[in-house]
Amino acid sequence: MSETDNPNNPVDQIEQVAANGLLHRRAFLKTGALVASATPFLSAKAAPPEVDSWSTVPGRPPEAYGNRSEFESDVTRLAGFSPPALGAGASRAPLGNLEGIITPSALHFERHHNGIPNIDPAEHRLLIHGLVDKPLIFDMEALSRYPLVSRIQFLECSGNSRALDQAQPVPGSAQSLHGLLSCSEWTGVPLSILLDEAGVQTEGKWVLAEGADSSLMTRSIPMSKIRDDAIVAIYQNGERLRPGNGYPMRLFLPGWEGNTSVKWLRRLKVTAEPTMTRDETSKYSDLQPDGTAQLFSFQMGVKSVITSPSGEQTMRGPGLYQISGIAWTGAGSISRVEVSADGGRTWGEAELTEPVLSKALTRFRMPWRWNGEPVILQSRAIDETGAVQPTRTFLLNERGPQYGYHNHAIQSWQISANGEVSNVYA
Amino acid sequence: MSETDNPNNPVDQIEQVAANGLLHRRAFLKTGALVASATPFLSAKAAPPEVDSWSTVPGRPPEAYGNRSEFESDVTRLAGFSPPALGAGASRAPLGNLEGIITPSALHFERHHNGIPNIDPAEHRLLIHGLVDKPLIFDMEALSRYPLVSRIQFLECSGNSRALDQAQPVPGSAQSLHGLLSCSEWTGVPLSILLDEAGVQTEGKWVLAEGADSSLMTRSIPMSKIRDDAIVAIYQNGERLRPGNGYPMRLFLPGWEGNTSVKWLRRLKVTAEPTMTRDETSKYSDLQPDGTAQLFSFQMGVKSVITSPSGEQTMRGPGLYQISGIAWTGAGSISRVEVSADGGRTWGEAELTEPVLSKALTRFRMPWRWNGEPVILQSRAIDETGAVQPTRTFLLNERGPQYGYHNHAIQSWQISANGEVSNVYA
Repeated sequence: MSETDNPNNPVDQIEQVAANGLLHRRAFLKTGALVASATPFLSAKAAPPEVDSWSTVPGRPPEAYGNRSEFESDVTRLAGFSPPALGAGASRAPLGNLEGIITPSALHFERHHNGIPNIDPAEHRLLIHGLVDKPLIFDMEALSRYPLVSRIQFLECSGNSRALDQAQPVPGSAQSLHGLLSCSEWTGVPLSILLDEAGVQTEGKWVLAEGADSSLMTRSIPMSKIRDDAIVAIYQNGERLRPGNGYPMRLFLPGWEGNTSVKWLRRLKVTAEPTMTRDETSKYSDLQPDGTAQLFSFQMGVKSVITSPSGEQTMRGPGLYQISGIAWTGAGSISRVEVSADGGRTWGEAELTEPVLSKALTRFRMPWRWNGEPVILQSRAIDETGAVQPTRTFLLNERGPQYGYHNHAIQSWQISANGEVSNVYA
Repeated sequence: MSETDNPNNPVDQIEQVAANGLLHRRAFLKTGALVASATPFLSAKAAPPEVDSWSTVPGRPPEAYGNRSEFESDVTRLAGFSPPALGAGASRAPLGNLEGIITPSALHFERHHNGIPNIDPAEHRLLIHGLVDKPLIFDMEALSRYPLVSRIQFLECSGNSRALDQAQPVPGSAQSLHGLLSCSEWTGVPLSILLDEAGVQTEGKWVLAEGADSSLMTRSIPMSKIRDDAIVAIYQNGERLRPGNGYPMRLFLPGWEGNTSVKWLRRLKVTAEPTMTRDETSKYSDLQPDGTAQLFSFQMGVKSVITSPSGEQTMRGPGLYQISGIAWTGAGSISRVEVSADGGRTWGEAELTEPVLSKALTRFRMPWRWNGEPVILQSRAIDETGAVQPTRTFLLNERGPQYGYHNHAIQSWQISANGEVSNVYA
């Protein structure tokens, strides 16, 4: 393409920060007249657009509770459910179609163990009992009297990105490979306040959390996490929780594997030891190379994925692009994201979109000039503790073949000469 | 109520920061065993809850694009539309039912001049012309090639809160009185980049923005705002814009009156002077006491409103509450919100929920012990420029009776002895 090899083209004068066309993260802001000169897709005509049909007739009035455009109907969650257990499985957020950091609640990922219960909030109760001075039962009215806090934070299934455990790369998209991940503004009652009401006894070091779905999903949570930042969430992105995310109330444990944020929360039992429930022994533990299982590996690792371009998308020819992706860590805030266009040999720093929030998705973006040749794009995140997102090879070597959860390896997207983007190992 | 007059009750030992029970903003976090002791609504029983019907049968699988619970169906926008012009009017966000700062897109306020067009994004075009070196036409594919930025920011109709202009207080709720206000994460292309592509000529100081709806809504925008922070938004809360908010693209001018963020954007014409369109002369100008009109009064004032408790809600008896509300300013960030429970004589400082973002809603919260007697609750916001939200009396005296837009006066909620909350002037 002549556009990309012209010494008079301002694009060719921008600082390249890593191989294969990765440009300084603020190149778009520093250089005028930039994009069109590298973009053969712009149709430049002097004539005004024709008057479209919708500009000539009155439109419809708004709905009481609005819907999206009919032209967006193919942007959906990807569900993996099959008979006869229709309610057990997962649905994945369409990460490749989303931008920013908020996941619309209608597209938030879900993982159910026996389907979504239809709970009447007037009938639902939360019991706090066990090693407490005063057992308490809260109905929604009592709970909503308590002080609320709000935080924008991610939620990720511990089984997310498990496809990268496979020996050969599985064809897939950002959604199918990494879509058990979402980010919302959660509002709820700090759990420490409710436990103070009940009066936790000295020997109470764990809390069993139980959901009201028909799998009665149960996990043991250390008291330290409860005291730190656990909430009983009742709002998601401004409105009440969605049914698939625990309506009318769920536990929410920021930065921890999703299954511990027990949905449809009905019971919190204070215990001296972990309860060793079915859900933390038959699964949600990490098998080690020596055959033992690591239990209670709650915190999600530092991770990132490029969502544009990403698997199953197609490039629209050589030229200037903005690489866009998301990064997150259970340890707190993302401090840096780097991008490689040569399979991990050289790296350039991406720009982080403000606000960069603790235990939230962070959007990163980076200008890139693709010359039309095959390349492998990667991103790697570094968090506030200095932890660096590992390569797949490093992670699998360290963990052995039985591990199965918490895959937070670097994703490699191969872009072929025809513009197709696919999952590869590099 | 004995709970509120007991010297042994920890609630009565908390620092009161203003009259009628306003407590230190961190009282909930500093004092254990606090809420229940002041809350007669808590039902404390030792027995576990009964097993509800939904815990005994498999639930349903998730939807591809999810819906909310049937039990939330009464939380809707409040629409003021009437035949024969079905599409002209406004719908208001249910502020009293929302928490946090994100407005779900399904409940975002709308103001339409001739209804919502059903635009095919494959057919829609954006023209940039006028005083430019090279007129350009963008289709969605060309536009989406450009670099994106994301920001969480409010949008408010300039006619919001107009009810407070009335001589007598209008019965109403936070929704009906102030619901032409919402806050989303907006993602779009910085307009300065598009104008750089077109090459703005020296005399180009204004931009005419035109929508593709059948009212062809048009406003003149100063070039300084375009250069500052204007974007062509294509995503709202992670997904593509909703039809009622400009799908597939809208102008978004942070902190400015909503009508200038022209929806369904089809044309940007660079001009030397403002175009003086119908939409900026017959309306959206501010009539002064001397009969002249102030044009181009774009920036929204510093403002706040308590959403809980708020108009048409009912208190559940005396005891401890968390007052919750929202504050915002077109000038940048909120620096402080104060709350009064005695009609504005004494004020205490509320806690601001992080993140406090520029030109976004900021959630504030404050603990309050209501003793059951009639009170008047108010909030007043102060922004980073030092601007203070004015009283209604001050604002109307300053502006005269014809003004009609930009009412950002302090809202007074009266709580009567029976717990009813209503709009009053104080």
